[in-house]
Amino acid sequence: MALKTLIIGGVAAGPKAACRLQRLLPEAEITIVDQDNLISYGGCGIPYYVSGDVSDEKELRNTSFHMTRDESFFLQAKGVKVLTRTRALTIDRSKKSVEMENLDTGRHQALAYDKLVLCTGAAAKVLPIPGAELDGVFTISDLHKAIAIKERLARGEVGRAVVIGGGAIGVEMAEAFADLWGVETTVLEFMPHLLPSILDPAVAAMLAKHLLDKGVTVYTGEGASAIEANSAGKACRVVTAKRTLEADVVVMAAGVHPRSELARDAGLLVSPRGGIIVDDRLRTSDPDIYAAGDCIETTHLVSGQKCHAPLGSLANRQGRIVADNLAGLPSRFPGWGGSFIMKAFEVCVGATGLSLAAARGAGFDADQVITAQSDRAHFFPDQSVIPLLMVFDRQSRKILGLQGFGPMGDGILARIDAAAALIAGGATIDDCGSLDLAYAPPFATALDALNATANVADNKAQGRLNTVTIANYLEWMDDFAKHPDWLALDIRHPAETAAFKAKFGENWLDIPYPEIRSRFQEIPRDKELIIICDAGTRSYEVQCFLKSRGYRTLVLGGGFNCIRRIGATWWPTS
Amino acid sequence: MALKTLIIGGVAAGPKAACRLQRLLPEAEITIVDQDNLISYGGCGIPYYVSGDVSDEKELRNTSFHMTRDESFFLQAKGVKVLTRTRALTIDRSKKSVEMENLDTGRHQALAYDKLVLCTGAAAKVLPIPGAELDGVFTISDLHKAIAIKERLARGEVGRAVVIGGGAIGVEMAEAFADLWGVETTVLEFMPHLLPSILDPAVAAMLAKHLLDKGVTVYTGEGASAIEANSAGKACRVVTAKRTLEADVVVMAAGVHPRSELARDAGLLVSPRGGIIVDDRLRTSDPDIYAAGDCIETTHLVSGQKCHAPLGSLANRQGRIVADNLAGLPSRFPGWGGSFIMKAFEVCVGATGLSLAAARGAGFDADQVITAQSDRAHFFPDQSVIPLLMVFDRQSRKILGLQGFGPMGDGILARIDAAAALIAGGATIDDCGSLDLAYAPPFATALDALNATANVADNKAQGRLNTVTIANYLEWMDDFAKHPDWLALDIRHPAETAAFKAKFGENWLDIPYPEIRSRFQEIPRDKELIIICDAGTRSYEVQCFLKSRGYRTLVLGGGFNCIRRIGATWWPTS
Repeated sequence: MALKTLIIGGVAAGPKAACRLQRLLPEAEITIVDQDNLISYGGCGIPYYVSGDVSDEKELRNTSFHMTRDESFFLQAKGVKVLTRTRALTIDRSKKSVEMENLDTGRHQALAYDKLVLCTGAAAKVLPIPGAELDGVFTISDLHKAIAIKERLARGEVGRAVVIGGGAIGVEMAEAFADLWGVETTVLEFMPHLLPSILDPAVAAMLAKHLLDKGVTVYTGEGASAIEANSAGKACRVVTAKRTLEADVVVMAAGVHPRSELARDAGLLVSPRGGIIVDDRLRTSDPDIYAAGDCIETTHLVSGQKCHAPLGSLANRQGRIVADNLAGLPSRFPGWGGSFIMKAFEVCVGATGLSLAAARGAGFDADQVITAQSDRAHFFPDQSVIPLLMVFDRQSRKILGLQGFGPMGDGILARIDAAAALIAGGATIDDCGSLDLAYAPPFATALDALNATANVADNKAQGRLNTVTIANYLEWMDDFAKHPDWLALDIRHPAETAAFKAKFGENWLDIPYPEIRSRFQEIPRDKELIIICDAGTRSYEVQCFLKSRGYRTLVLGGGFNCIRRIGATWWPTS
Repeated sequence: MALKTLIIGGVAAGPKAACRLQRLLPEAEITIVDQDNLISYGGCGIPYYVSGDVSDEKELRNTSFHMTRDESFFLQAKGVKVLTRTRALTIDRSKKSVEMENLDTGRHQALAYDKLVLCTGAAAKVLPIPGAELDGVFTISDLHKAIAIKERLARGEVGRAVVIGGGAIGVEMAEAFADLWGVETTVLEFMPHLLPSILDPAVAAMLAKHLLDKGVTVYTGEGASAIEANSAGKACRVVTAKRTLEADVVVMAAGVHPRSELARDAGLLVSPRGGIIVDDRLRTSDPDIYAAGDCIETTHLVSGQKCHAPLGSLANRQGRIVADNLAGLPSRFPGWGGSFIMKAFEVCVGATGLSLAAARGAGFDADQVITAQSDRAHFFPDQSVIPLLMVFDRQSRKILGLQGFGPMGDGILARIDAAAALIAGGATIDDCGSLDLAYAPPFATALDALNATANVADNKAQGRLNTVTIANYLEWMDDFAKHPDWLALDIRHPAETAAFKAKFGENWLDIPYPEIRSRFQEIPRDKELIIICDAGTRSYEVQCFLKSRGYRTLVLGGGFNCIRRIGATWWPTS
């Protein structure tokens, strides 16, 4: 007898589960229902549709071979029945049936199932502030909203935009507004830095500076308290504790929450954070009901903590796993690895595992290093420095996370994905340092930036490398009195150090790197030296030498390359 | 008392060991000797210097902060003494001293050591053919040879070049000649395909076709039997069993062999293949003598077999490990992972682990799949299809290798490096399928090409996917009589299939993918169907469906996308 499978939700996890199940059990009777008329689209492509990189929303709904994934495509090509504009109202678990409403006709019908799959997704959070419901305020929750925003852009109605929320979608939307459409755009992030759940402050600061360089205004530590309307009743201003921002469009990108009402009302277990609770085979508390995608609670691979990870990549993997289990294959979902990557104008920022803050929050004895190595051989024409931040556990020496920042391209992806694979396997710093990464001058350095970063972490973990954090260093640069016993030892080329020496006088000692061994006796012994170069590597060499001569030293990890990317008001102008 | 460390060889592993040791033991007394006057250069950059991508050979010897790594740099900046133009003649292990000759003065001296490190590198193989020693025949063994070749190019003396050897250096040199200098270039590879020790035939064929498209002539299965001279005594022709090729320059890129004579003469253990035998701490059979880099024998991580892996990336890692052990840190070299990447004109080819041929040769019950997935979201403007070939073990389901081919950029690097990390951790197909790789539309597909390839491998390993190899398929296309019971089932769009149907008549059945479910009864039941689409994914869907209806089918993995990249004389011209 054919397995009657009903899937609620037709964007990512649902269609994936349906099609995989159809391949595994060609006789299965599979139905997808979705309340929308548009299904199976690349939701993560919305910012690129708004920006114009993707010209037509249909491209987000097409296959790679140029067919539109609509009801008739699923029926004819996939053998899967799809009911759109159909809302699931209630689940009757004892009768194994779901009450549906056709949103066009208002008619109700009950659909029976042997197995039910909930892929109800997530809903954009609407902040509880006055004006949140005004015309001109958008969440990025579905394709219709994206189409509406793009129509306003195309009609020339948007001169200024305010994006509330500096997470990935907020930043991507800011780029979409500013880059092609030339909209004057402001991003507000309530937390102290952009992408607060993904990045540590130094990497987030590099991203913020790039946005500023590209004309996007960024205010962190600043939330929206109200949205005000003009006389026509349209949103026209966003008010914060510090200022009022004019806006023709307001995007609310303040995160999402799982859509789990249907599951909760049916008595299925739902976590306090709102995610449907599933086991590692993605079964809910009812063995005949599975759930996948943005509506479930999952486990972070590194911290072991429960979390909500609403990502299209996970939804697709989970859809496959649900299908396997429905077909009797014992596939398991191992959890979320924290992998992330994002384009922002001409740069790329990526992460995997845990940030330092998250790792410490999860109870690890975590530490970090930051490096500024080249992405390819330094003699190769288009090489760039790519800051990498590695988080590791001091006890187990395991790698807990990696963050990277670099030019747009796949160079950061390569290091993040390799680190993701290492972390998934429980690798240590040592495993990473000796990992045989592919090398040729157009692609990497002989010792890849990822290997080198692990080696720096090794030096730090073993106490050979002693560093000052970027935050503490910047604090001191703002007020030398904070550490009166510190002295900058700038070992860069004299042409680079001169302006600093001139500006910072007695706080700045400049001895070029190749002269340290012959001139170290000029260095005062009563100071702790903050050793500065452009990447941190020469500084470490000098630290090893000066330590052996009895000096107290700290290395500025990542060097001035990282400081330049973060930006500093005290930077001497030439 | 300071540890007196003598290092023989100053290109990659030697300087790395010296500098790391100096950092760990700032009091150590370290001397590097090298018979050349040029040291510490990026040998892997030679083809890019010849091509002109790197304009000055000095760039290959500079640090990233623009200092030249010469004797005075090592002494002043690193605290390491370097003796160039100094050849090590014999090691007296009982006296712990090495007899040296100054190549400029002819003077001999003995240098004492507490610890000796052999980094004597590898020498280019000179084929035992007539004319191998002629003027105009070059190996790519050091910077002097590269400078000499570039001088001839710059003087306009090179109109035609023949490269003997289709390994990485041979292909890189062919590009260097042809791309910037417009030299008419031919590559001869004795084995049946390019990069025979790294790639399987299908991927190598894609590379060969790209070289042909770029004007480089490639003859595989064809070696040089002689090099002939003109009346001036210069090399002017390369003779093979099939033809005579005019040449103004001949590059012999036929591999390298370890330089281990010094070690052998000193009674150290040397493998039958010529590599100095070391343990995983890189100690030779004499506990006071270490060896690293191209002169040692190492172990392949996946096969466990002994091998020679002369790669700059390994040399650098090994140099660090030697230093650690000299300083009392118990670092170990885990072996070679087989990771490889190369630029060739506008494409990139990469590999890690074992090829199918190597895996079977090593005794694995190995199988492969080939896919043609997109490197980024198919709706993102600059997406490309990147064929990936995954090798896996049918018994353990472990991933044994990955090969990738794609446009120049870091997209292949990302997949190769992630696979390298997985393989180093002993990951299975399942680990790879569920690996949380970073996703955003500008960087990947929601289910990354690497995940998808693992899923295809899973389908193959479980017997759900049945494929025809590309080789068998091409054989059949050349002669349909080889498999009279085969019938092509072309499920692409009618606009794509028409020319094939017209040309191949009764051997070609075309039913578009979305019509299979309604028209499958048109398919003859007495044939085995070779299902063809553009990537293999739709074909697999159709295979699942047709199997359930009782048909015998085989999928052409990677589809016509891969066939187009390989090229076929039978391809219909439109």
